[in-house]
Amino acid sequence: MNDSRLMTLSTPCLLVDEGRMVRNIARLQDRADTLGVTLRPHLKTTKSVEAARYVLADGDGPATVSTLAEAEAFTAAGINDILYGVGISPDKLNRVLALHRAGCKLTVLLDCVQQAEAVAAASRASGIAIPAMIEIDSDGHRSGLTAEDPALITVGRILHDGGADLRGVLCHAGGSYGSVGRAAHTKLAEEERLAVVAAADALRTAGLPCPVVSVGSSPTAHAAADLTGVTELRAGVYVFFDLFQTGIEVCDIDDIALSVLTTVIGHQSARGWTICDAGWMAMSRDRGTAAQAVDQGYGVVCDEAGQVIPGLIMIQANQEHGVIARRPDFEGDVPEFPVGTRLRILPNHACATAAQHQRYHVIPEQADAPLKTWARFGGW
Amino acid sequence: MNDSRLMTLSTPCLLVDEGRMVRNIARLQDRADTLGVTLRPHLKTTKSVEAARYVLADGDGPATVSTLAEAEAFTAAGINDILYGVGISPDKLNRVLALHRAGCKLTVLLDCVQQAEAVAAASRASGIAIPAMIEIDSDGHRSGLTAEDPALITVGRILHDGGADLRGVLCHAGGSYGSVGRAAHTKLAEEERLAVVAAADALRTAGLPCPVVSVGSSPTAHAAADLTGVTELRAGVYVFFDLFQTGIEVCDIDDIALSVLTTVIGHQSARGWTICDAGWMAMSRDRGTAAQAVDQGYGVVCDEAGQVIPGLIMIQANQEHGVIARRPDFEGDVPEFPVGTRLRILPNHACATAAQHQRYHVIPEQADAPLKTWARFGGW
Repeated sequence: MNDSRLMTLSTPCLLVDEGRMVRNIARLQDRADTLGVTLRPHLKTTKSVEAARYVLADGDGPATVSTLAEAEAFTAAGINDILYGVGISPDKLNRVLALHRAGCKLTVLLDCVQQAEAVAAASRASGIAIPAMIEIDSDGHRSGLTAEDPALITVGRILHDGGADLRGVLCHAGGSYGSVGRAAHTKLAEEERLAVVAAADALRTAGLPCPVVSVGSSPTAHAAADLTGVTELRAGVYVFFDLFQTGIEVCDIDDIALSVLTTVIGHQSARGWTICDAGWMAMSRDRGTAAQAVDQGYGVVCDEAGQVIPGLIMIQANQEHGVIARRPDFEGDVPEFPVGTRLRILPNHACATAAQHQRYHVIPEQADAPLKTWARFGGW
Repeated sequence: MNDSRLMTLSTPCLLVDEGRMVRNIARLQDRADTLGVTLRPHLKTTKSVEAARYVLADGDGPATVSTLAEAEAFTAAGINDILYGVGISPDKLNRVLALHRAGCKLTVLLDCVQQAEAVAAASRASGIAIPAMIEIDSDGHRSGLTAEDPALITVGRILHDGGADLRGVLCHAGGSYGSVGRAAHTKLAEEERLAVVAAADALRTAGLPCPVVSVGSSPTAHAAADLTGVTELRAGVYVFFDLFQTGIEVCDIDDIALSVLTTVIGHQSARGWTICDAGWMAMSRDRGTAAQAVDQGYGVVCDEAGQVIPGLIMIQANQEHGVIARRPDFEGDVPEFPVGTRLRILPNHACATAAQHQRYHVIPEQADAPLKTWARFGGW
């Protein structure tokens, strides 16, 4: 099945199925509305102003970013309530202050005394009370303090008494990526909630403000049963979804809105290989499904229209060559594709695959509507 | 040890040690001169016009590229003898012809009848005899025909009789990446040579021209003992080298000219973790050393001046967070780094890490010379 709108595209390139993306966005917005929390989408997956307009409630915020380059690009586009969700280092505070002067309420994240002292000092020196969230750890995944750690109150006091704007506490249950199924994610979402609510209580008991209580990861955001005490929900990859999220049962494979369009450039028939022009430069080196129950290689092969072709994955990738072959355990027949055939590859990890590209080619649901092009940016 | 020239850089960012790069380039150029072959460097690693001037013999060619976007960028910069080293698909021939009209002698690569017919047809239709090389397989690594395959002569004849410019045969011993040590690489280089010389002989015996006989991969290019019958040598990653090449003993760790500058943003002291602001977005997801004798995680940790710190690697990476910790088998003491400390990380794979960045910050050998900035490009 062919889609004539794709004929003008040079491969490899990045495709977005607009209908799927819109449905993915609506699904999590519905969850947030039902749970009574504000959705603060993470824009690190899409890194595109056009895509951000779809995902932000009123088109301008609130939002989460993973780099100051994102904050700068989105501020320039008028998005004015942004959380920079990576621990702040003192040398970046000049850029944070510049964003405030440009009209963005940029909130920083931290989990130690040294960071809090730097943020407080920069607030006093600039006259801008920098909004700051304290990171809380619920699962030993990466960063953060616990409610019981005396450093929590110390950090809160340094910020609040030192001239910064202590906004609250934030938790990211990144460990949820290692668990499969809704029941597991619901349990982790509750642990995430309990960790951050306990931290908020500790701050308030110490006489410190804590208006914002923020949780989120794509798995826990979709599975949370109750967010009592939480004010804000964050997630990112749900906009596109990917094979990794399919593997942990957060979405179905038919929800995946991102794919790479590729062209067949050769064969090694004796080995059952079809060679295509999407290598790891187009797919990324992400092999996140390698440790899952179903290893998807470098991606699942679809026809040009996006229908999954049973039994075929990209089994290996060089820089600009992908090798398409039968899954090790597949018994059925697989088609042969002449040189020039166009295929789509569903990616392991949407954040990583999208980052290899400079633009999205967006396919509207209406078959007669023209493709749209969205620029995306990278860098720091 | 600090280098004050790096203070103005925002992290994470990409550094090039100019002295090491110049030495790496000279080393392979010396090899090519000794072996009596033309060096046709692969520009896919650096993707930078400024870097290309260092690596190309007279600054303008000959060169190899992995995408037509590279060919277009380098043609615009005046480089006019380029081999596009990925199997051509018919839909890309319009861009190939446009490059010829822009003054570049762009050579395409192919290994099947369908491609040869398309190249011959485009040559006849355009009046431009498209130069084409036939890919030869020496190790079952990826693409290519063998000297014994009757398709070799068929493809050669379609090109030569059909109006294209049959330039010769090319082999890439990509399987050499899986072998350790000079003796193994010398043996694979000889197999690469024998495969491609046999193919050249077969073409000539059939009355077809074969002026160019091209071999190369970084491991075999450095280890080849004899290139009788070969006219041209190709390699790419040798300009920067990386931990993977160190692991297969093509270079020493002190030859690696590429690193990522990062800043410490936090700790999880109970786990012995230092968190830095270079995650997989800055390092790439490439874990090529995972299957080697020494797994380097996401990279080897150096101080800001580039000295390796014994015992420390990046053990895991999230999108914008790197976790630095002791190697599993390291017994000695490792230093603790306060928030704000700058470190350098040597990458597993220079091609993949460089591709995550938009520019190089180049450190001249003279300690008082200012940094240089080289733009790099991506895309297809």
